[in-house]
Amino acid sequence: MVHSSSPSTEQALAPAAVFDWLDEAAELRARAGLTRTLRSRPADDPVLDLASNDYLGLVHHPAVTRAAAEAALRWGGGATGSRLVTGTTALHTELETELAEFCGAEAALVFSSGYAANLAALTALTDPDTLIVSDAYNHASLIDGCRLSRSDVHRAPHNDPAAVGDALAARTHRRALVVSDSVFSVDGNAARLAELSAAARAHGAALLVDDAHGLGVLGPGGSGALAAAGLAGEPDTVATVTLSKSLGSQGGAVLGPRRVIRHLIETARTFIFDTGLAPAAAGAALGALRLLRAEPHRAERAREVARTLSAQLTASGLHASTPDAAVVSVRAPGPEAAVRWAADCRTAGLAVGCFRPPSVPDGVSRLRLTARGDLTDAQIAEAVGIISRTAPAGA
Amino acid sequence: MVHSSSPSTEQALAPAAVFDWLDEAAELRARAGLTRTLRSRPADDPVLDLASNDYLGLVHHPAVTRAAAEAALRWGGGATGSRLVTGTTALHTELETELAEFCGAEAALVFSSGYAANLAALTALTDPDTLIVSDAYNHASLIDGCRLSRSDVHRAPHNDPAAVGDALAARTHRRALVVSDSVFSVDGNAARLAELSAAARAHGAALLVDDAHGLGVLGPGGSGALAAAGLAGEPDTVATVTLSKSLGSQGGAVLGPRRVIRHLIETARTFIFDTGLAPAAAGAALGALRLLRAEPHRAERAREVARTLSAQLTASGLHASTPDAAVVSVRAPGPEAAVRWAADCRTAGLAVGCFRPPSVPDGVSRLRLTARGDLTDAQIAEAVGIISRTAPAGA
Repeated sequence: MVHSSSPSTEQALAPAAVFDWLDEAAELRARAGLTRTLRSRPADDPVLDLASNDYLGLVHHPAVTRAAAEAALRWGGGATGSRLVTGTTALHTELETELAEFCGAEAALVFSSGYAANLAALTALTDPDTLIVSDAYNHASLIDGCRLSRSDVHRAPHNDPAAVGDALAARTHRRALVVSDSVFSVDGNAARLAELSAAARAHGAALLVDDAHGLGVLGPGGSGALAAAGLAGEPDTVATVTLSKSLGSQGGAVLGPRRVIRHLIETARTFIFDTGLAPAAAGAALGALRLLRAEPHRAERAREVARTLSAQLTASGLHASTPDAAVVSVRAPGPEAAVRWAADCRTAGLAVGCFRPPSVPDGVSRLRLTARGDLTDAQIAEAVGIISRTAPAGA
Repeated sequence: MVHSSSPSTEQALAPAAVFDWLDEAAELRARAGLTRTLRSRPADDPVLDLASNDYLGLVHHPAVTRAAAEAALRWGGGATGSRLVTGTTALHTELETELAEFCGAEAALVFSSGYAANLAALTALTDPDTLIVSDAYNHASLIDGCRLSRSDVHRAPHNDPAAVGDALAARTHRRALVVSDSVFSVDGNAARLAELSAAARAHGAALLVDDAHGLGVLGPGGSGALAAAGLAGEPDTVATVTLSKSLGSQGGAVLGPRRVIRHLIETARTFIFDTGLAPAAAGAALGALRLLRAEPHRAERAREVARTLSAQLTASGLHASTPDAAVVSVRAPGPEAAVRWAADCRTAGLAVGCFRPPSVPDGVSRLRLTARGDLTDAQIAEAVGIISRTAPAGA
């Protein structure tokens, strides 16, 4: 029945009209040039890929794909349940042990995504008497983790350890957690982790670093941004990583002191109430990790490719970022120009990322290039040639 | 530096003491008998498994594991990026097309987990002028989705469509969304979906159903709870499912009107900012889906196993739930007794789920049994024998 005392006329909506408002929202996005559509790629896509997050070019490496296939055949298509029930296999434990060892952490805990790992760390390591101090340019998953926590959140200016120290000093909360990406994904610039850690320590705060874009690229042999900053294994420091970028798989992990990992196992909702990572994904990540340990030069090569790309793009007159890791961004004059530029690159045989609002923290549209460690110098030159040739006026 | 005007003595904490509070929390859990630890299982675990969510027993089926292995070898260890950048392969599109077709929905969108799918649906389909009416026993991921939304949330009494109608009638919000599990995971009871839909429609509200435990078990050939309730393909109704239960893989999906899926693609943060599902997981789910379409009796067999299990447990004097799908729960006298009971079952060769606070919505500890569709009558009898023999006093 429809109540005649209905406080809103919307209550009489026909079922077919209930989602009309979604079409109106789509129309607004279209008018702002912000429509997004999925592009389905074939297995034998001939384009040169500088758009993915496959920083070391391992996603198709036989050591990775074979490990994935073998894990699926041996352990099954899925983990069968949540990690605390039936979803922990010996393969998950091996991966956690070797990942912690590689990054110099006491322990590691694997999740079905980096997003889930970030939600877990932020909700489980905070309480209503905690102040979270979060970098203004942090990844969406960290922001959502802040929102899911029951803590007050202070949004600190981007990459400003002194401002973080001031926020911590002014707090009235018993505890505090400083949160930052290690490498900011859009522009590829690095956080000042040593200074952030010093600011946190001066005020008894913990430090949580999302090293999604640092693992495999920064630190000795790619062991990550915390190792690069001399912070691996510190008792007040926690890292999250993804298995889906340098490690060519899917999933995420939290790395830190054993007491932190135990706490997550027992209390983190995105760990307890989620199915364990599929064996194939655990196997692929383990395969990539072992390859990286055997061939540590892969990390340095990715950083070298980034420096070369940036230098050549700058030399050709474009506004390329100075890379701290394996991401180079190039400024575009606006969102529509960026979309056209990326499309023109694709037509010429090059896939590049195209980041526009609301996926860019500063409102600046740009191309985003992945400096894959397996790119040859000829491929780098080819990419630079295409990007320069297709550049719009004002780029 | 430590400020002398420090509002809290905690600011002078040494780094090694920053996470001391986690040990205190662990001690409190231990005293309450609520410690949880991971058990790492071997590939050749000899126990009879009634603890997983592998409802159709497909996780080790060659049609599933081979599809996973082939997908990894062909498409790579991971999706390489977010779905809107490089993470959509033709395999993802195939899976989405066939899943939508199977469930009778206009369109589907695949996520890295059911958790992510629920967060997406709840945040993208609501706004600050929406009232969410959420069943009190809903899954953690739905609750977290409600918390991440910017909407008011009304927690409705469990499985009470009239109360849902009352909450909708009293609202002052322009929009409303009714949210419920289709099968509540702990007890295995089903939501009254037809009545819920009627209540939602009487007040112009949309309906979101988490069919994680219904897909593959309920509806014609396992096509899900919405199909069973005659609600598949309705323009005001959206379902979420997991690929990690009946489909023996990992991941989740949202199914609904095309305009809903488009809206999620363009606005849902756990879609836009997450790496795409690994090809092996997409392949495994597609393999399972095709098997289920070819052999639709598998769904009915799972329901039959559940009814048999429940009847035999009840006949042996235990408090078993009456199953609406493929889950049977058995009441335990308390959390510690439940843990001991489950451990005794395992010693006798049977793995069962053990659910205690805070994973049970009503505070009642119980064993949770999965009525796997591939169990033989002899295995059912064996399971019932072990559970009865090991039952604690008061069970």
